[in-house]
Amino acid sequence: MQDRIPILHMGSCLLVTIQVDMHDRLALQLQDDLTERISSTGAKGVLIDISSLEMVDSFIGRVLGNISSMARVLDAKTVVVGMQPAVAITLVELGLSLVGVSTALNVEKGMKLLANA
Amino acid sequence: MQDRIPILHMGSCLLVTIQVDMHDRLALQLQDDLTERISSTGAKGVLIDISSLEMVDSFIGRVLGNISSMARVLDAKTVVVGMQPAVAITLVELGLSLVGVSTALNVEKGMKLLANA
Repeated sequence: MQDRIPILHMGSCLLVTIQVDMHDRLALQLQDDLTERISSTGAKGVLIDISSLEMVDSFIGRVLGNISSMARVLDAKTVVVGMQPAVAITLVELGLSLVGVSTALNVEKGMKLLANA
Repeated sequence: MQDRIPILHMGSCLLVTIQVDMHDRLALQLQDDLTERISSTGAKGVLIDISSLEMVDSFIGRVLGNISSMARVLDAKTVVVGMQPAVAITLVELGLSLVGVSTALNVEKGMKLLANA
């Protein structure tokens, strides 16, 4: 059982690739780890790649929103990249439109978005 | 069950973050996917982050070596980053010294190595 999701530090960005459907404890652990890493590294941007996720439920949607808000108060911008079309459809059908979360189609575009922020 | 490891495309690099102890089929799938992606994207570098792996057995060691050799003939350089000290100890004790595989301490240093290649 995986107990935390690794966070890669690249330049002034942190990169997280979510590869497994996150159970709730793992999502909360990621939230804690990310805020701690933003603070310790002074990172200005957080990229979260969810291209492997085939399902994002309301809890995970809320965690993504929380991460984005926490990063903002720590002076970092969060971009969620690689969302599958089906996930976008489900999220909106669930009434979750990820308010306040920036998105980009892929990591490369997300990086550009962060660089221009 | 995760059936493949996502490959992120950034600039002229491909980035793979291995987060789970790879069973053999997953490792071979990664090898296939990576060679296919190098060829389709024309990537010049491959970064493989293994900081989450607590164990690398002889099979995985061999797959890493194979990936590196395949990338080389496709004109891309492979750097394995983030190896835990215990993994390095085990590998050498197993008689596997990952000949031909470049390594770096973390993603950032790996990127620099690729940029200078």
